[in-house]
Amino acid sequence: MYEIGVVYRNIQRTDAGLADQLGGFGTATVHEAMGRVGLMRPEVRPIFAGGQVSGTAVTVLLQPGDNWMLHVAAEQLQPGDVVVAAVTAECSDGFFGELLATSFKARGARALVIDGGCRDVRPLTAMGFPVWSRAISAKGTVKATLGSVNIPVVCAGALVHPGDVIVADDDGVVCVPRALAASVRDAARKREANEVDKRAKLASGVLGLDMYAMRGPLSAAGLRYID
Amino acid sequence: MYEIGVVYRNIQRTDAGLADQLGGFGTATVHEAMGRVGLMRPEVRPIFAGGQVSGTAVTVLLQPGDNWMLHVAAEQLQPGDVVVAAVTAECSDGFFGELLATSFKARGARALVIDGGCRDVRPLTAMGFPVWSRAISAKGTVKATLGSVNIPVVCAGALVHPGDVIVADDDGVVCVPRALAASVRDAARKREANEVDKRAKLASGVLGLDMYAMRGPLSAAGLRYID
Amino acid sequence: MYEIGVVYRNIQRTDAGLADQLGGFGTATVHEAMGRVGLMRPEVRPIFAGGQVSGTAVTVLLQPGDNWMLHVAAEQLQPGDVVVAAVTAECSDGFFGELLATSFKARGARALVIDGGCRDVRPLTAMGFPVWSRAISAKGTVKATLGSVNIPVVCAGALVHPGDVIVADDDGVVCVPRALAASVRDAARKREANEVDKRAKLASGVLGLDMYAMRGPLSAAGLRYID
Amino acid sequence: MYEIGVVYRNIQRTDAGLADQLGGFGTATVHEAMGRVGLMRPEVRPIFAGGQVSGTAVTVLLQPGDNWMLHVAAEQLQPGDVVVAAVTAECSDGFFGELLATSFKARGARALVIDGGCRDVRPLTAMGFPVWSRAISAKGTVKATLGSVNIPVVCAGALVHPGDVIVADDDGVVCVPRALAASVRDAARKREANEVDKRAKLASGVLGLDMYAMRGPLSAAGLRYID
Amino acid sequence: MYEIGVVYRNIQRTDAGLADQLGGFGTATVHEAMGRVGLMRPEVRPIFAGGQVSGTAVTVLLQPGDNWMLHVAAEQLQPGDVVVAAVTAECSDGFFGELLATSFKARGARALVIDGGCRDVRPLTAMGFPVWSRAISAKGTVKATLGSVNIPVVCAGALVHPGDVIVADDDGVVCVPRALAASVRDAARKREANEVDKRAKLASGVLGLDMYAMRGPLSAAGLRYID
Amino acid sequence: MYEIGVVYRNIQRTDAGLADQLGGFGTATVHEAMGRVGLMRPEVRPIFAGGQVSGTAVTVLLQPGDNWMLHVAAEQLQPGDVVVAAVTAECSDGFFGELLATSFKARGARALVIDGGCRDVRPLTAMGFPVWSRAISAKGTVKATLGSVNIPVVCAGALVHPGDVIVADDDGVVCVPRALAASVRDAARKREANEVDKRAKLASGVLGLDMYAMRGPLSAAGLRYID
Repeated sequence: MYEIGVVYRNIQRTDAGLADQLGGFGTATVHEAMGRVGLMRPEVRPIFAGGQVSGTAVTVLLQPGDNWMLHVAAEQLQPGDVVVAAVTAECSDGFFGELLATSFKARGARALVIDGGCRDVRPLTAMGFPVWSRAISAKGTVKATLGSVNIPVVCAGALVHPGDVIVADDDGVVCVPRALAASVRDAARKREANEVDKRAKLASGVLGLDMYAMRGPLSAAGLRYID
Repeated sequence: MYEIGVVYRNIQRTDAGLADQLGGFGTATVHEAMGRVGLMRPEVRPIFAGGQVSGTAVTVLLQPGDNWMLHVAAEQLQPGDVVVAAVTAECSDGFFGELLATSFKARGARALVIDGGCRDVRPLTAMGFPVWSRAISAKGTVKATLGSVNIPVVCAGALVHPGDVIVADDDGVVCVPRALAASVRDAARKREANEVDKRAKLASGVLGLDMYAMRGPLSAAGLRYID
Repeated sequence: MYEIGVVYRNIQRTDAGLADQLGGFGTATVHEAMGRVGLMRPEVRPIFAGGQVSGTAVTVLLQPGDNWMLHVAAEQLQPGDVVVAAVTAECSDGFFGELLATSFKARGARALVIDGGCRDVRPLTAMGFPVWSRAISAKGTVKATLGSVNIPVVCAGALVHPGDVIVADDDGVVCVPRALAASVRDAARKREANEVDKRAKLASGVLGLDMYAMRGPLSAAGLRYID
Repeated sequence: MYEIGVVYRNIQRTDAGLADQLGGFGTATVHEAMGRVGLMRPEVRPIFAGGQVSGTAVTVLLQPGDNWMLHVAAEQLQPGDVVVAAVTAECSDGFFGELLATSFKARGARALVIDGGCRDVRPLTAMGFPVWSRAISAKGTVKATLGSVNIPVVCAGALVHPGDVIVADDDGVVCVPRALAASVRDAARKREANEVDKRAKLASGVLGLDMYAMRGPLSAAGLRYID
Repeated sequence: MYEIGVVYRNIQRTDAGLADQLGGFGTATVHEAMGRVGLMRPEVRPIFAGGQVSGTAVTVLLQPGDNWMLHVAAEQLQPGDVVVAAVTAECSDGFFGELLATSFKARGARALVIDGGCRDVRPLTAMGFPVWSRAISAKGTVKATLGSVNIPVVCAGALVHPGDVIVADDDGVVCVPRALAASVRDAARKREANEVDKRAKLASGVLGLDMYAMRGPLSAAGLRYID
Repeated sequence: MYEIGVVYRNIQRTDAGLADQLGGFGTATVHEAMGRVGLMRPEVRPIFAGGQVSGTAVTVLLQPGDNWMLHVAAEQLQPGDVVVAAVTAECSDGFFGELLATSFKARGARALVIDGGCRDVRPLTAMGFPVWSRAISAKGTVKATLGSVNIPVVCAGALVHPGDVIVADDDGVVCVPRALAASVRDAARKREANEVDKRAKLASGVLGLDMYAMRGPLSAAGLRYID
């Protein structure tokens, strides 16, 4: 699957407006709207709470303990991108910190998602540059071995193609393939509209048992009430 | 131990006042007052910091990737309850989110403790509905397989009977059996009163070595000081 | 390596001013300035965000589930110290809480780093006493078995001698040996000065590829750009 | 739930013949026959492959790093017992080794299940004394703090009462409550008889899809075949 | 990426001879020959030592705690296939055991690779049906929720398309994309031939430092020898 | 602590006879004889069961994903050595396999202990070259970044100086400092002699409670027997 040592310069990004709209829904709604696929593993967590971003993926494949390709990726960034970095083996090193964030931000990137470690948590928080990472570590990395940029990568269990939409918030990170972005946006919209009504009913004391008509199926499955 | 597919409707809740009093002490004091038993495993963590709650347990047994029984449990909730959800196998899925929290809150529940995953962290934080969970994940669950409600469950290593008192804060979650609640409350009170004095002494520079009369036992155990 | 049952009373602390200066740089810069050694494992995390401390190490070796030696250590503390506690086996118990923190603070200690668990997170946060720990747990410990104070310890993978400088922040914990403290301080200063310029360049849109002259080495390593 | 510092001498053991019969089925069949409850967490693994035992539980509650109560338990053992040891906090120490195994074996015990560590793997293998443990570690333990013997314990997530039947093999460990042992034995027998026929059919090439009549439900659930 | 609820019946399998040849090299050689890509995460381990298999992938996407789609997959199997099962969330349940193995074997399948749990380790070992799994657990699963068969899946971090070649042994599991199989086979052959000579030299006492001409690069990198 | 980029050629090895004698006792006895210190973390496990070795340590510090320094270390090996390899960050890559083992064996090395991954498990087992590692992975490593040889390292939590004695078996790995080797050997001898008698007593049915005179201390600690 992976090619090592290549940088694809021309990638097809999902329409920027579509990427922005998807970000508004949050990961839980987008994940549901896609049919419950495309979610990264929950070990990838935000370095600070409250961030909610979306953007188009620029992908990076890193080697353990080596962040060379993040510098290569910086040149490929366009405003609205989110960098998605996979590592060929689990590694908690701090591949990314304040200097790279300054560069990424200058290029218009919105966030980093990395299946490895991050450092400079305090400056990154102060800059408001959100990162989702598997670990936090002050340990830096070398620049010695090639990986790739803008090849399809598996990041935290999710397959990400360059140009796909990444949506990330406190609940995790989800990847929406470019070809599905519009239909997922539509499905998310319906779902969200639908939830407004459900939320009001539940808040008024209506039970999910009744609202979702679960009593029949529960009884059919054999549920017994004992007084 | 477990019965599958049953809901016990009539449970004996610990006296509400007693449950409230226990919550005032926090988990560390309550755990000490009980003789250092009843604590859940530390992998169960609050989704936001600073929460401190107590209440009477309504227990749920869930199947992995399936939150059907949380809907069944909602109907059994009374004001002052804390839902305690065990899962038959470790699963990080987001079994619980904003809609169920809205329903639980409408029924008077105070919190959820779940040996599985939670989602909608940001809305739950905004609602002030505290959750202690093993994981955070945007991934939703199906409603296909029965578990049970209000049977005794093992949640994160602690045995919880319906009606027991649950105390939870930033240090974790402890379960106080109904029959012991009054005596634990009394023991916690004494312990807390005792700590006021100890804290003042230690703050003034008195050493624990002297306050607890440890020098003799340490010497008897063979401790040597080397200059 | 370890002696059990001893307390070394006369340790050689790094100069206080030097320890303070090192704290100003943060762990990432100090770790780089040392040549990327001396960092503790990333499993040791701060109990609250935003803390940044440095100080001279008073070391403790604990037995699992037993905090006796923390009381012994309290007597050896001087203003500006940071307590570094290793445990002879991984244990998540809450070895440390509000009372010990009150005592440590009264003795002038600045922080605790422990390769085990901590409790009383809320009171410790309110007191502003920072702790870096492997776990949070309400479970208390006994006082029954000797360890040692002020012997060299391995804490979270890092070798710490009493009197070394400990620097800790949101990125982790690093130990600077006493003999290297001045030269590490000097190297950190140069590094930091150097970064001001780099940051400005990157913020203006200069790429790391050019600033670090990476294009040649990348090409030599075989990197191919594909349009 | 737990009483600390007590030894119950008179426990009601499940009938020995029943315990033996349950062991013949193996954990997977017993677990199914019970309705999929009572299984310990899969982190508890055999120290050598191929063991298959059953017996009546003598329970022990240990403190981390302390095996005192295993010596107390030895006196309570009768031929056909299996020792089940819980620990009040996760601890990988080697609580059990060749000497204790010699003693347990002399008393007629058949195995140990421990939610902690074990050592002397080679001698235990040579003796043929099977152990299911969470870890293997040469590190010994102290004898300083009381736990209990023959109280109900939660071991690796399963509630075990003294006298219950423990069944353990390469697939894990399951606990059958005394009151259910006979009916679980009967259900396991039926299940096993049933499987002989199923195995033969599947071996002959019959598909589970047909044997279990799954095609209708799959189609009803919406499964689509694409050529 | 994932479609839920579909079964692709016509997949393009890699040539059987090619798949067999790749299996002869073992995972380490194949992984090197591919340029160090395509390896599954090391958490997926063989249930018994010494197995070495290769075959063409039939892929399955499972839901946590649910093995329905393994039965659906059985019908799609052809002699020489290896089943690769991903799960939408981490789950240690025993999705697979002796009965399914009997069915898979009757259909000509050679092995199962599953990013979840397995049971019946002893019978599977006796049958000689090799399984690589993330966990071992006696816990069975339900048949209630659809996944898919023969869609591309991410299994333990590796992207697998139906028809790709799977090579598995004691070192892990690697996936060779169908389009690359022939060239990887050729590269592996060269590598293996090359290693015969290297092994002989090293066995005779020649150092890798000399055989690989490392002394110059090490010196250039600044390595210092100290007497 | 660590110097990067250096190779110490002249190290003081513990006397070979002493190293051999220590190996005869096994890790549990040696660890006890040292006062329960010096043990590596239990995550480091043998790649095959039944190995029991001892030897003098040649230490290596590796960078994640890079095994260059193992080749450098080979030149420093003498008959009777055990290589101890630390890594600057956790990394499961297969740093070591058949070719390096061939070279190490040709130089007289007896084993490898590595706080990282190993590959070629089947050939290494066939060769009888024992390895204790944190992981098994087919993934190879690069040769790009310097570490060091024969500096003091922390490997899996234990401090190891070059020339110390390493004892390893199925229970784990323990390091005996050179200066203590003779006295630890003597203490281990006494302990072992002592155990012969204890084993015989326990096998005859004598209880540890009586043999170790525990009844008094247990009673003093408050143990209560309940009939």
